[in-house]
Formats: sequence, C-alpha cells, structure tokens
Amino acid sequence: MPVNLNLEPGRAVRGVSIATVASGIKADNSVDLVLFHLAPQTRAAAVFTRNAFCAAPVTLCREHMQKNEGRVRGLLINSGNANAGTGEAGLQMARGHCEALSSSLDVPVTSILPFSTGVIGQLLPDQKMHAGIALCCSNVHDPGSAAESSLGLVADKGIDAWAAAARGIMTTDTQPKLTSRTIQVDGQSVVLTGMSKGAGMIQPNMATMLAYVFTDASVSSEHLDSVLKSTVDVSFNAITVDSDTSTNDAVVLCATGQGPELSPAHEAWPEFVETLTVLCRDLAQAIIRDAEGASKFITVAVNGGRDLAECKAVAYSIANSPLVKTAMFASDANVGRLLMAIGKADIPDLDANKVSVSLGDVLAFENAGIASAYTEERGAEVMQRDEITVTVELSRGQAATEVYTSDLSHDYVSINADYRS
Amino acid sequence: MPVNLNLEPGRAVRGVSIATVASGIKADNSVDLVLFHLAPQTRAAAVFTRNAFCAAPVTLCREHMQKNEGRVRGLLINSGNANAGTGEAGLQMARGHCEALSSSLDVPVTSILPFSTGVIGQLLPDQKMHAGIALCCSNVHDPGSAAESSLGLVADKGIDAWAAAARGIMTTDTQPKLTSRTIQVDGQSVVLTGMSKGAGMIQPNMATMLAYVFTDASVSSEHLDSVLKSTVDVSFNAITVDSDTSTNDAVVLCATGQGPELSPAHEAWPEFVETLTVLCRDLAQAIIRDAEGASKFITVAVNGGRDLAECKAVAYSIANSPLVKTAMFASDANVGRLLMAIGKADIPDLDANKVSVSLGDVLAFENAGIASAYTEERGAEVMQRDEITVTVELSRGQAATEVYTSDLSHDYVSINADYRS
Repeated sequence: MPVNLNLEPGRAVRGVSIATVASGIKADNSVDLVLFHLAPQTRAAAVFTRNAFCAAPVTLCREHMQKNEGRVRGLLINSGNANAGTGEAGLQMARGHCEALSSSLDVPVTSILPFSTGVIGQLLPDQKMHAGIALCCSNVHDPGSAAESSLGLVADKGIDAWAAAARGIMTTDTQPKLTSRTIQVDGQSVVLTGMSKGAGMIQPNMATMLAYVFTDASVSSEHLDSVLKSTVDVSFNAITVDSDTSTNDAVVLCATGQGPELSPAHEAWPEFVETLTVLCRDLAQAIIRDAEGASKFITVAVNGGRDLAECKAVAYSIANSPLVKTAMFASDANVGRLLMAIGKADIPDLDANKVSVSLGDVLAFENAGIASAYTEERGAEVMQRDEITVTVELSRGQAATEVYTSDLSHDYVSINADYRS
Repeated sequence: MPVNLNLEPGRAVRGVSIATVASGIKADNSVDLVLFHLAPQTRAAAVFTRNAFCAAPVTLCREHMQKNEGRVRGLLINSGNANAGTGEAGLQMARGHCEALSSSLDVPVTSILPFSTGVIGQLLPDQKMHAGIALCCSNVHDPGSAAESSLGLVADKGIDAWAAAARGIMTTDTQPKLTSRTIQVDGQSVVLTGMSKGAGMIQPNMATMLAYVFTDASVSSEHLDSVLKSTVDVSFNAITVDSDTSTNDAVVLCATGQGPELSPAHEAWPEFVETLTVLCRDLAQAIIRDAEGASKFITVAVNGGRDLAECKAVAYSIANSPLVKTAMFASDANVGRLLMAIGKADIPDLDANKVSVSLGDVLAFENAGIASAYTEERGAEVMQRDEITVTVELSRGQAATEVYTSDLSHDYVSINADYRS
C-alpha cells in the first residue's frame, strides 16, 4: 500500500492527444503502449539517465533532441520491456518504431521521442509494437472516436485518456501518478500536468524513472531546458528507493504553445517555475510513496553543510543505508545507525562534536553523545508515524538539502526476488 | 546458516594468554569480555575504521598506537555494546578500563588497546566492566587455573581459550571464525592464528569489523605495519554485506616474538606475507559466509580496468546493489541488473560495447547485447549454486580486483528489523 499517495487531481492539457493500447507486451494484457501526440507549436526539453548502459530508446532520444531544436511532436512509451542491454538489434527496432510513427503522423522522425520501461536484456516483440503503433496512430487521427478495441482502451484528449496513460506507463507501481496545477497568466489559465512511474531501481542521476510534464503555455525550448534542470535537481534527483540507477530514466517537459507566452522576462515566470517545481516534487515524492515494499515515507534533511555536494552525500548515505532502512521498517529509533551512516559519508574534517541529529522534532544527538532530554520513548513516538523526517545539522556552513526515501521491508525483498526487472 | 564456512582449525600461539568472562553486558549471559595478554617481546600494527563517528575505544587505540611504538601488551574486547556515540562519558569509561588493566597487569597504559562491538549509542555498564576486568587479570596472572567461575568460563593459553575468545567477540555472528596456518622458518614452526567477527554493518573502509591476527614470529612494528596494510586491502577491505561502514572496525596484527626473527630481508618473508594474506582472506570471507541472512557466497571479479579504483567501483556497485542481491537470493540469472549496476558506477568513458559479463563460466553479455550462446537455462544452472562468481571484463586496461559479498534475503531484513545494533 502506498504511503499517503494523495495527489492533486489531473487535468487535460490543450495541444496533447493521447492514445493507449494493450499491445500484448505485458503478459496480463493491460495497457502497455502510450502515445502523446503534440501540437505543432510544442517545444520540449528532456534529461536522461547517466547510466553507461543506457537503453536503446535513450540513445535515440538523445540523438533526436540534438537535431530537433526542441520541436517534439510525439512521445511513444512502452512498458513491460526496457529495450536495454539489447545491442544493435534493440537500437534498430526502436529506430523502426520511430520511423513508423513519423510516417503515420507525417512529422519528422527527429520529433519522435521513444521510451521503454520494464525488463532489461530482452528484445521487444517487434510485430506487437508495430501493430500497437498503427492502432495508436489511427486513433489520434480521429480523437473523437475513443472506444474499446480488441487491443484495449484507445483513449482521446479527455481526462480519461490521461488517467489511462498514467496507468499504461506503470511497471511495479501499484498506483498511477498523475497530477495538475493551474496558474493565471495574463488573465488566462495555464495548466501544468505531469505523470511519473517507478517504484524500484530508483536513485536517478541527472534524471529519473519516467516522468512527463506538459503545459499549454508557450515557452521556448531554451527556457524549458534551464527550468527543467533546476527543477529536477530538487525533485527527481532528490529521491532514492534502493540506490540503483535505472538504464532508462527520463524526464520530459513539453509546452504545447496553446496558451500565453512565458519567459524569464514575464512577471508570472517565478510563479510558473515555483509551480513546476511543486508539481515535479509531488510526482517524485509519489514514486517514493509507492516505492517497492514501502511502509514509511522518509525525509532526510541535511542543514549547515559547506556546500550542496556534502549535504547530498550525507543525505544519500542515510537514505541508502540498508541498516537505517530496516530500522525504519521496524519503527526502531536507532540513532546509532544514523550516526554510522553520517560518519561513513566521508566528509573531510567532519567534527562529530558539532553534529546534531533529530527524529521529527525530537533532538536525539548532540555534543558527540545522546541528547540529555532524549528518551527512547520520545524517539519511539516519532518512529511510529508513517511520515518521518530525520534532520542532520552539520554546523559548518549554509548549504542544505532534502532527500526522500522509503524503508526496506520484507515486501521489497519479495517483490525483487520474484519480479524480473 | 553460514555458506560453506569451513576454516582450517585454530592453533594456540606462544606468547598469548587469554581470559574470557561473561560479565553481563550481553543479556544472555554468554562470554562478552576477552583479554589477550601478550608477551613483553610483542610488536603490533593496527588499522581502524574511517567512519567519522568512530567509537571511543577506536579513539583511544589510535592515541595509544601513536605513543607506544608498536609495543602492545593487552587487547581488551567487549561485545554487546559498541561504546560509540557515547561522547565524553564513553571516552572516560574506556580510559578507566585501560587504566585498570594497566595497573593490574603492571604494563604501560599506552600498551593496552580497547575494543567494543555491539549496540551504538548506549553507555557501557561500567561496574560490570570493572568486575570483569579484575577477574580476567586474576586469571591471566595464574594461567594454569583455567576454571568455570560464577561469571562464566575463564580460560588459559590452550586452544579452548582461543575458541572461547573467538566466540566471545561475536554479536550477530552465528559461528565463531578462528583459523590458523603454519610455515617453517629456519627449521622452526611459525604459527599464524586469526579470528574475526562481524555479520552486518560491513563495508570496511581501511579496516574492518574486528579481527585479531597473532604470530609467534619476531617482526618489527614497522614491518608489521606495511604488511598489514597491503594484506587488508585484498581481504577485509574487499568485502561488503550491506555497504554500511561500522563505527568500530579494527584489525590488529601481533607478533609475540617467541619464534624466529622475520623481516623483508629473510628468504621466508614472501611465504610469511602470502600465508598472512591467505589467512586474512579466509577470515574476511568467513564474515561474508556468515553474513546476516546470507544464503549465497558471491565473488565479483572485475578485470581489464584502467586502474584498481575503477575495478573496485564497479565491483562494489554490483556487490552493494539491492536489486542484484535480491536477484541472487532468488537464484535469478538477472543479467539486466548486473548491467544496470556496472553502468551506474560512473566510470568515465566506459564503452558499453566492450564490456562482457559472465555468470560462473557462462558468458552472458558481450558486444552490448546478450551473448549468442547464452540461454536462460545455462544462466539458471549457475545461479542455483551457493557459491557464484560474477566476472566483468572491462577491456580497457590491466587492473583487476575481487570483492566478496552475500545476497539480500528476508532473513537480512528480519535480523536488522529485530536487532538493535
């Protein structure tokens, strides 16, 4: 069961048509192929995994983004198979899917971005993919015709289509993650809607699992690029389930250009950036709330560092420690394991005497020893909660960061000992 | 159940008297205090944890080793309580224990090295410690009088005492880890005997859990220093259970000077170093064989790296990946997760096309794709074994390394969700 996964409801974004198909990649015949068809005015930015064994579609996305000047017309996502570790054959397949889509939608092939998520090291079922792509295209050409087909729900521009898409990109997720925010710009509503997926193999580096964020505002690809990078740093790049960085991580931000123009010169820009940041943080936290086996949502806040890098090092050392995570699962106020994790982060000249640690608002450790007012009972009271904040004060500078993580439970082991990801 | 934990039998070392006491630190009244009383000729070298929150006894050991020129007369080890995160009070207590021992044995206080292992963040029961120390001392003064006392077994110089000591330093270990090797030097036998403990919070950095190695040879502290550092690098610094570095890790090497003199100038030196390395590797691997929840013993071999650092980075990225470790637990030949772990190790300019991966002697991945002769059946056959070697060939240099690890099982979660370490 996800931990308090209560997102603001999703809203459709003008300039986006959606088709979803159960193409048969997933054995259970649920939706596994999603097409976002984007209006001609759309500009986009994207960030991808830094894993050296990046998947074939990630290689193609990078290639296309280098050539298309941010002009993106189609996002094609399949779940159930990651098309990673599949060599030249996998790359040629992904190229064929982009070409089929390009020809069917009559858009440049470089305007297509392909994404895959699921099992690593197996070739995609190519015929099923092509059949699914054809069905997606015939539907987005006639978006009024939303209907059940033999291959499953083929949806349209309405919110049902968005909900189906959010479900269609899932793998071990137990719930779809779709949410929206609206701001007013020049007297008009601007909608920001995003979806994310991912529950394991989560410690994004530069990007994350899969996340797609759309707005109907009109924003240049250059400005989308810069705002995406800064936003991802405090959202998708601030989460970890298991310290494992996927081969397929990607975050895409699309502005469909149907609404008002926005740029850093506009007075509404700060609100747009702030809203985008909140939306991305909600989607990133949603991944943690639905993490494999999660029974707790844990925030690790590190303050008083010399720079951001050392704050992140301490925060991830805690958030990735199997001993900290099993203690969290057991609701054990195990301050010793927190100290161990801070101490192993290899921070130069860290003065253990100046470090303090709090569980929730209870000060547990200071002056190199257990805090005088601390009792096991006060710690235990905090640990019983399903949302726990661990705060570390390093007392050597002004930098601060937050990282979000889950606990390590029997269900995590069961899920990953049973599931071939 | 440990995985094939079959060590060569232990032998007593001349120049070492042992006392073991159940002082009541451990709730189950098993032996929790061990004294090694060393002959006046003894010289020693030691390495300690790099965790910034190192325990009070580690601080004292470092202080004493800086002053004693390698002249060590007593090792005092308590299990059940780590005396870490205990601030000034913990340091004063440890100082008091060293002073009591120094006065009772009539040796300089700097010749005493104290060690603690167990729960972090709680003060030691000081009275019980002092009572235990007094009993240890009265016994080693009269080592013939091995007997059961009200505080438990108080042993002598014989092999029973060594076995009791190896058991007395355990925490979550399920079996004691004691082993010996003998070499011939100048027509005389030289014995090397070591013991180690540790089962979780294991990814030593510079040293490891607790390990004590004794030889009756006569070796200068300077030579002991250099041979210990190189030996530890390929033994205790090549293992990981859970990526967590303890606050209390220490390895001590003592030469009691009862046998022949050895130095790098002696023709038997290479054999001494090699034998010491084998002994330490056996003890380090014994920790992995008895790791918390272990059902497999996994060797990760990385070859063809540009330097040792990148080989270790790849090896530890695999050995610490929760997804790799759960796949190992499930006997799942999950090549994709191995690729993910190699790829996230952040090796500059790694060419994924040149990397190959084998499970046992079965080539699974090459040329950026699944190897042509590989089948799931061949992979599955390897994964069913309880000892598995994963070999990664980076094909970009001559460096190579091996790292030893265990799988991530339900028992690991149970042990660490139940045990306050």
